[in-house]
Amino acid sequence: MTDRQIIYGWHAVNAIMERNPAAVDHLLLSTGDDRRIQELLASAAASGIKTESRPRSEIDRLYPDATHQGVVATLKSSNRMLTGKQLPAFLDTLSAPALLLVLDGVQDPHNLGACLRTADAAGVQAVIVPRDRAAGLTPVVHKVACGATQSVPVFAVTNLARTLRLLKEAGIWLYGASDKAPQALYETDLSGPLALVLGSEGSGLRRLTAELCDFQVAIPMAGVVESLNVSVAAGVLLYEVRRQRLQASKD
Amino acid sequence: MTDRQIIYGWHAVNAIMERNPAAVDHLLLSTGDDRRIQELLASAAASGIKTESRPRSEIDRLYPDATHQGVVATLKSSNRMLTGKQLPAFLDTLSAPALLLVLDGVQDPHNLGACLRTADAAGVQAVIVPRDRAAGLTPVVHKVACGATQSVPVFAVTNLARTLRLLKEAGIWLYGASDKAPQALYETDLSGPLALVLGSEGSGLRRLTAELCDFQVAIPMAGVVESLNVSVAAGVLLYEVRRQRLQASKD
Repeated sequence: MTDRQIIYGWHAVNAIMERNPAAVDHLLLSTGDDRRIQELLASAAASGIKTESRPRSEIDRLYPDATHQGVVATLKSSNRMLTGKQLPAFLDTLSAPALLLVLDGVQDPHNLGACLRTADAAGVQAVIVPRDRAAGLTPVVHKVACGATQSVPVFAVTNLARTLRLLKEAGIWLYGASDKAPQALYETDLSGPLALVLGSEGSGLRRLTAELCDFQVAIPMAGVVESLNVSVAAGVLLYEVRRQRLQASKD
Repeated sequence: MTDRQIIYGWHAVNAIMERNPAAVDHLLLSTGDDRRIQELLASAAASGIKTESRPRSEIDRLYPDATHQGVVATLKSSNRMLTGKQLPAFLDTLSAPALLLVLDGVQDPHNLGACLRTADAAGVQAVIVPRDRAAGLTPVVHKVACGATQSVPVFAVTNLARTLRLLKEAGIWLYGASDKAPQALYETDLSGPLALVLGSEGSGLRRLTAELCDFQVAIPMAGVVESLNVSVAAGVLLYEVRRQRLQASKD
């Protein structure tokens, strides 16, 4: 295993090929006429990504502990955060209703990694962090994120307030998570294009950030702990968005 | 470090002092005029809890790996996990529909602590773990749980399969979380009395545990990561239970 990141399994590799093929250096695919592997070959050709075909048994030998299904992607080692300047062009490419995650001051790398893992699973299209108040994409973040540092673009912006205003101008509603919000999560319509804004664990949303949010929502707390871990809060909120959107698509 | 349980950090110690001061044997506090420490001194005096003041540097030396913030609580040694024998009597005391969390093989203390924190927030009445396959209530667990080790009873049982059968006989439905479940979370009725069963992160539910579950539910995964962190999965699932119960109480 090199220090470059490896993603394996059809589902995971297909997800990164759909969402962020630019992050992929090359694919290792098993030989044979599996339809899904043929589709990956076509998709790699379309994106100019190198592929290598080997017998399944050889891939088993190379990755003995991985449930690889004959599909392994090696990612490029350059994995820096994107900048605020790149955000408008990115927003223009969104086809589905926006689902963005803004982390205002998540400085612990474990928490950042955990948030990225959760964001990936919940279908978040991009994560936005303030450049001077966030953990970088350190090895700990990569490890905890389980591949999500590659699949979810992370924009590090110099002026978060300006970025939040940009999102609003793009028709994206800002929902801030606050324990003190009068409105509970389940009474809130989350089916439109939105960015979920989470503050740091200790002190919550900063005043200016909170003021820029269109809505504030609270996760109901039944016990003695004052707040959820930020990645757990992100999971609860993002999956409620997902549930409401699934529901809306059925109605 | 003794074998008695230690809680450190202002938030966690404050939570136990508010919720269950009877569990606290004594407090070790840093000298100085920190307002929060003065409040803890007053609160300890009101509850008849011994305190000891030492320079911060000395507490650093005693607990070199702890983010103690100058605040350390030593709990009474009776504060251990409950046993399976105590579970039937506990179940008899439940008034609201059961909401239990079974963790089958969460051996990492950070994950156990995070699960307890989430369980407390979501209104879980008790957590059940197999005695030989779980982290104990170590200082790390207490710290990460932010007080939930005291607020949520934890039963460590010798035979998990027998305990699961006991729950079923008590009319509690068992819902196992599995990535491979055919039924998605949002199509599942979670409003009745239930225990949510989560496996270890690496390998999921053990076969026998999975077979004992009445239902298996999957959290939809949209990205490249294969699973959520166990405490995030617990949060998403438990809060969906909560949402459905709130909804059911309105209908």
